[in-house]
Amino acid sequence: MDKILRINMGPGGEPTSRTEAVGDYAGLGGRGMTSAIVAKEVPPTCHPLGEDNKLVIAPGLLGGTTGAMSGRGSVGCKSPLTGGIKEANSGGQPAQMLGRLGYAALVLEGKPKDDTLYMIRISSDGVEIKAAPALKMKGNYDTVENLKNEYGDKVSCISIGQAGEMKLASATVAFTDMEQRPARHAARGGVGAVMGAKGVKAIVIDDTGASMRSPKDPEKFKAANRAFVDGLKKHPVTGQGLPAYGTNVLTNVVNEAGAYPTYNFKTGRFDGASAISGETQAETITARGGKATHGCHRGCVIRCSGIWHDKDGHYLTKQPEYETVWSHGGNCGISDLDTIAMLDRLDDDYGVDTIEMGATIGVAMEAGLVEFGDAEGAINLVKEVGKGTPLGRILGSGAAVTGKAFGVERVPVVKNQSMPAYDPRAVQGMGVTYATSTMGADHTAGYAVTANLLGVGGNVDPLTPEGQVELSRNLQYATAAIDATGMCLFVAFAVLDQPETFQAMIDMINSFHGLELTGDDVTALGKKITKMERDFNTAAGFNKTDDRLPDYFRKEALAPHNVTFTVSDDDLDTVFSDL
Amino acid sequence: MDKILRINMGPGGEPTSRTEAVGDYAGLGGRGMTSAIVAKEVPPTCHPLGEDNKLVIAPGLLGGTTGAMSGRGSVGCKSPLTGGIKEANSGGQPAQMLGRLGYAALVLEGKPKDDTLYMIRISSDGVEIKAAPALKMKGNYDTVENLKNEYGDKVSCISIGQAGEMKLASATVAFTDMEQRPARHAARGGVGAVMGAKGVKAIVIDDTGASMRSPKDPEKFKAANRAFVDGLKKHPVTGQGLPAYGTNVLTNVVNEAGAYPTYNFKTGRFDGASAISGETQAETITARGGKATHGCHRGCVIRCSGIWHDKDGHYLTKQPEYETVWSHGGNCGISDLDTIAMLDRLDDDYGVDTIEMGATIGVAMEAGLVEFGDAEGAINLVKEVGKGTPLGRILGSGAAVTGKAFGVERVPVVKNQSMPAYDPRAVQGMGVTYATSTMGADHTAGYAVTANLLGVGGNVDPLTPEGQVELSRNLQYATAAIDATGMCLFVAFAVLDQPETFQAMIDMINSFHGLELTGDDVTALGKKITKMERDFNTAAGFNKTDDRLPDYFRKEALAPHNVTFTVSDDDLDTVFSDL
Repeated sequence: MDKILRINMGPGGEPTSRTEAVGDYAGLGGRGMTSAIVAKEVPPTCHPLGEDNKLVIAPGLLGGTTGAMSGRGSVGCKSPLTGGIKEANSGGQPAQMLGRLGYAALVLEGKPKDDTLYMIRISSDGVEIKAAPALKMKGNYDTVENLKNEYGDKVSCISIGQAGEMKLASATVAFTDMEQRPARHAARGGVGAVMGAKGVKAIVIDDTGASMRSPKDPEKFKAANRAFVDGLKKHPVTGQGLPAYGTNVLTNVVNEAGAYPTYNFKTGRFDGASAISGETQAETITARGGKATHGCHRGCVIRCSGIWHDKDGHYLTKQPEYETVWSHGGNCGISDLDTIAMLDRLDDDYGVDTIEMGATIGVAMEAGLVEFGDAEGAINLVKEVGKGTPLGRILGSGAAVTGKAFGVERVPVVKNQSMPAYDPRAVQGMGVTYATSTMGADHTAGYAVTANLLGVGGNVDPLTPEGQVELSRNLQYATAAIDATGMCLFVAFAVLDQPETFQAMIDMINSFHGLELTGDDVTALGKKITKMERDFNTAAGFNKTDDRLPDYFRKEALAPHNVTFTVSDDDLDTVFSDL
Repeated sequence: MDKILRINMGPGGEPTSRTEAVGDYAGLGGRGMTSAIVAKEVPPTCHPLGEDNKLVIAPGLLGGTTGAMSGRGSVGCKSPLTGGIKEANSGGQPAQMLGRLGYAALVLEGKPKDDTLYMIRISSDGVEIKAAPALKMKGNYDTVENLKNEYGDKVSCISIGQAGEMKLASATVAFTDMEQRPARHAARGGVGAVMGAKGVKAIVIDDTGASMRSPKDPEKFKAANRAFVDGLKKHPVTGQGLPAYGTNVLTNVVNEAGAYPTYNFKTGRFDGASAISGETQAETITARGGKATHGCHRGCVIRCSGIWHDKDGHYLTKQPEYETVWSHGGNCGISDLDTIAMLDRLDDDYGVDTIEMGATIGVAMEAGLVEFGDAEGAINLVKEVGKGTPLGRILGSGAAVTGKAFGVERVPVVKNQSMPAYDPRAVQGMGVTYATSTMGADHTAGYAVTANLLGVGGNVDPLTPEGQVELSRNLQYATAAIDATGMCLFVAFAVLDQPETFQAMIDMINSFHGLELTGDDVTALGKKITKMERDFNTAAGFNKTDDRLPDYFRKEALAPHNVTFTVSDDDLDTVFSDL
């Protein structure tokens, strides 16, 4: 993993590729790599869809190794949704394969001279770029089916659906999973629109002939990996809750805590929660012959993903994640898992962020386009996106644009990105993360649900402002570092609670790369990445007024706790005061 | 004019009104008044459509007097389009009548508790507020027709069309002209959406029984007014060009200068310019029995407006202004005056800004929705706005949102507001104004066309960066002051060129109000207003990255001069360094 593959899409001529040494970017992975390249090479004020933006895809520091949980791939660029720097990451197979082929990063640059749509094949033999007119305006599922037919069932694919081709700000970059389905997504911030603006429909990765990356100290690495896996297995969240019920194990927990945003963030508890909970979901999946416990990439030992079958027992989509179940479910007053699964499938096929899409439908419901709870209405709205109708283009542009088009004041976004499935009034640490993250509202950027609701990594009262800034800050730094390893963020549950598991993770990195990092170095890495991102955003025009929740979270009290967001603006401004 | 009328629309109950002394706002008028109230009373980060925003309507310092040219009314708020402070002003009769009724400002506050639509009647007898369900989703023409039938042909009206009711960011506030037609508009920045958010469809002003405001020194005022009028009549622009051909006298001038933005700012010269020039327009109007020379309000001596008849000799709309002829004409490759007049009528009826709308259609054409030059296609697109279809809501939200929905990179906006009819590459002083104005891209904010192209107030080479910052700065201050007087900005031609006309204008203000202002005081007033506005915008989150043109104006050379925008960012940042 000592080279960077750069593909210039134009406009000076036909697309070209070149491989160069990793150079200054050596030692970086995942979000560390994508953010470093974007921060250094992309002019902060450029148009996100213009030739000066770059789309960077990078495996983590342990990508392509036998290390557990290390298969996530980061996708970075200047975001068409937020206007700031963006890293979204995904499970699935592509990152592992890129790593094994020796690529520390793949960078799409420039802009094609016309509207030709291209596909790229990367293998041990090199790089091939060719026009792919047959894929035009195909969904991700059809696209991957086409590519499988042409390139076989061993390759992995990175692709965009119709939304990416239309350059909509909620467009995702899809990664195929172990079953070669485009069910994992680098979903947030419109990264798919940037891929679309580069004219790239799909990237096929064939690692035939490439071998697993070798650690500097194989024995130490093996031992550390074993200790790490043991740690994950013994922690109740990563060893029991997540495998059994998937991420949707959270529905009952968050709903019980009164922090489950319902009816476009109107109340904190949803009557229909138990019907769409992880428990109900797992039971339904098992009854229909799907899989309730499943890994999204090779090397996963938590196995929180799953496979959802329709009523006839046929594959429909992956097991919808907690945030998807919430966004299309409780947030829209919908309590039917089959509807939610259908929406998940449509989102994945068109290539739109399920969080942004569900939040957008919530705003559309508030505008009166369809009623809250109208399952068929919600499905029809999402189908508009796939058809590319004007309504679909509004919705596919996300909640902020939808709010503008329909004159809605209550739009739950920060930096134009929709809030996920935790009401910031009842999980105030999460509110701090939403407000201040470099990414816009993003639960993964600093998952304060841990200490606020789950008693993981300590206990901080979720309903008061005390301690939230420190909690969010520490989590944001830790997350940036984990996102650089290529590891699934869920390792954090065990890593935060079990010192020996944290040490095992560091030992894995050290033994693999021949380093001697300490815990402090990990925090320092997280701070370094965060600072690069903050600096980019500042240069792009962000300031403290962007680090705020919408006004109404301070004005409207949320039932059942009747609480508003009370972390002060001054306190929000101290989150990164140590950078 | 010593009182302020405040109307609270809710949500605590039914709307109420109260009149209070002008108090701290004494001595302010027009933009000075609206910006002072908005700056002091509106939280800069509030949602523009929320209850904390206020819509302020104010006559100028000489509103309601016999002073020439003093009939413009300012409309101010936090803008739903730019997110910053906004003042848009309009000719027509309402401001004069408000002034004569003694109101220095009318302030709409709060937000109705439900979606009831209201109308307000203001007369010597007081204020009446009542539900007006019959006006729901009526165009401005039908609305005014209804109000005329009810309140007679002496009243003036301020109203919104469908766009304002839908809270679209290009929505205007319409003012009736001398013929009681809703043909004059406070057009820019979505002020109509704020009126819509307040639930107010129309304001009827009946000044029966009120008398002309009296000057402190009637003789001096009369003499100053006479000298002022003489000055306007002897200047070639205000005495000849504007009366004869209207503002559209500029088409040939700007096109000849290579600064006429054509095909969505692709080139600087339009083949069809002569077919839509002021000369052709005046000839056509006269042949059809319209009026080529006409005042938009009583007391106007320049009389640059006109009345456009269709091919059958029937009234269709006012004579479209230069910027409208450009936006719907050259910018869209359309060279047919009847098409442009129809678009003007539709815009006025729906209540959308003709500049924003034309620029938006240009972006839609770039996106391929219809071809450049397709007159029928353009009309159909604008009709979508009136129908309130999803496409209409995209277009009615302005060029920036349209660019997002259709993935267009070349969107000619600053602070989300569309550029008017002067390419900033070939009129670089105007580029400085577009970039730095508190209002977003706005030609009226500092009309550098004067010295750049017209030889008025000096000569500054339009194609190079030298001298543009100083030119724009001085014009921006002068404009803010003129906008406070309630005078038509076109007095500036004579005022800039003829010291005695400038002095006459100051003498009018002094003799009316019993003041002893000097020329320096006028500049100081302009600076004070600009500073209030800049401070509001800064608190709302704006910084220097907002004071920029889109990238492509620095990259794409504009024919025929093959010039890019070359005023440096550092120089742009010095425009307001003396504030």
